[in-house]
Amino acid sequence: MQILKTIDAIRQVRWAELSLSWGLVPTMGFLHAGHLSLVERACQENDRVGVSIFVNPTQFNDAQDLEVYPRDMDRDLALLKEAGADLVWTPEPETVYPSGYQSYVEVEEVTTLLEGAARPGHFRGVTTVVAKLFNVFQPNRAYFGQKDAQQVAVIKQMVRDLNFNLDIVVCPIARDHDGLALSSRNSNLSPIAREQATCLYRALNAAQSAFAQGERQAESLRFIMIDLIASTPLARLDYVSVADPISLVELEEITDHALLSMAVFVDNTRLIDNVIIGE
Amino acid sequence: MQILKTIDAIRQVRWAELSLSWGLVPTMGFLHAGHLSLVERACQENDRVGVSIFVNPTQFNDAQDLEVYPRDMDRDLALLKEAGADLVWTPEPETVYPSGYQSYVEVEEVTTLLEGAARPGHFRGVTTVVAKLFNVFQPNRAYFGQKDAQQVAVIKQMVRDLNFNLDIVVCPIARDHDGLALSSRNSNLSPIAREQATCLYRALNAAQSAFAQGERQAESLRFIMIDLIASTPLARLDYVSVADPISLVELEEITDHALLSMAVFVDNTRLIDNVIIGE
Repeated sequence: MQILKTIDAIRQVRWAELSLSWGLVPTMGFLHAGHLSLVERACQENDRVGVSIFVNPTQFNDAQDLEVYPRDMDRDLALLKEAGADLVWTPEPETVYPSGYQSYVEVEEVTTLLEGAARPGHFRGVTTVVAKLFNVFQPNRAYFGQKDAQQVAVIKQMVRDLNFNLDIVVCPIARDHDGLALSSRNSNLSPIAREQATCLYRALNAAQSAFAQGERQAESLRFIMIDLIASTPLARLDYVSVADPISLVELEEITDHALLSMAVFVDNTRLIDNVIIGE
Repeated sequence: MQILKTIDAIRQVRWAELSLSWGLVPTMGFLHAGHLSLVERACQENDRVGVSIFVNPTQFNDAQDLEVYPRDMDRDLALLKEAGADLVWTPEPETVYPSGYQSYVEVEEVTTLLEGAARPGHFRGVTTVVAKLFNVFQPNRAYFGQKDAQQVAVIKQMVRDLNFNLDIVVCPIARDHDGLALSSRNSNLSPIAREQATCLYRALNAAQSAFAQGERQAESLRFIMIDLIASTPLARLDYVSVADPISLVELEEITDHALLSMAVFVDNTRLIDNVIIGE
């Protein structure tokens, strides 16, 4: 497994084997089983797999959040080698955003809702760095987790609109034994907060059950989720949503399918989770 | 020469010969000798040459300007065949901007000046469509005329910042016998306006002569150009500039080189021209 820092080095490797298919897994490091499932899927579907590890400053709207974001490069590299990655890009911030940097990719409507409303500028940072990663690796496929459901919707919109010549592959959410969605941020939870953090999964399950039993009013599903979060002492709801999975526009009635999603502060750690219901 | 309308068709041709080098010449049609010089240069430097003809609505800040923009597809295609182009993309607006389109590429600082200040939104339209063209053709080289000096600076900045994997080749301004820079807009000039339209070239020449004779104060060069335009009855100055060729920031004193540029309304037609002076 090659570990490279410069853009030219990545391109040399990629272009030396132009006819091989490449999969790209963009990450911010501190890898968990969710990331590794993306790498394994990419290994199955491509001749070569590249992974980027870069804690992207432009997608943090909160400097404090950037500072406490967990990092463990040695462990990450060992895990990626084990998972079968061929190439890892670990650029310095100055390589990604050199002096005088001034270009951004903006996706408009679908970024204004949910995470976008809660975290101003977040998605501009995401789309910009992902566009750069696409141009550096020029992969045939890029792999993202369903965990960040809006990120998936935003990146698919960007790829469609800007005609990036690649496929976006979305992989299911990896969960802990008790249902908590795996996240690098989980490491910031105290033991008691970790216990209560299952409230997101339980709330989504409760709404999903109501849907299975015939409930089609989006507002009823929202109330079910809000109630469950409200009854969790350390939890404070940021938002809850029952929306169209592509446009993310809130629904009144669910006719075919819907994305249920939420963001919840558990103690001081902001967690997100989601599920797609229906056909 | 193939003439294609869809993105998939362009990709099929480009990827059938993956190992060949491709040059791209983006145009808005109504081709003149300036465009053809780009195509000829691209033919010399690449195995295959693609040309796009698309009057890009998002870069027109003025609907009236878009409406009167000259078009002649049959003549354009004949000229391109003659010049040696292999492939021409003539998309419909709905192919480039389908329903629900919402993604844009924005370059910040260098777009705020000169043409950017005079034409709000213009460069966002340019960078977005050029990024799309780069992703559709995935060329090794893309060709632009020095005529649109700020466009060149903006696109170079975008390529650098977003890591597009291609070279930008800039070709010299093609001029008519009396020095008028060739432009599709020249066809909108009345005979008397056409005569007076040489004022841009004469103003640039006058400033360049002063520089050759030792003048290094940018403001003196600006006054020389302003005076010459002011003495032309049908001409109305929009802006005149003596700036750094990369950042486009206005200079006080010229130490090494400078971009002299201007925009002038001649009758109702807005013309631009420029020259780089110094080393």
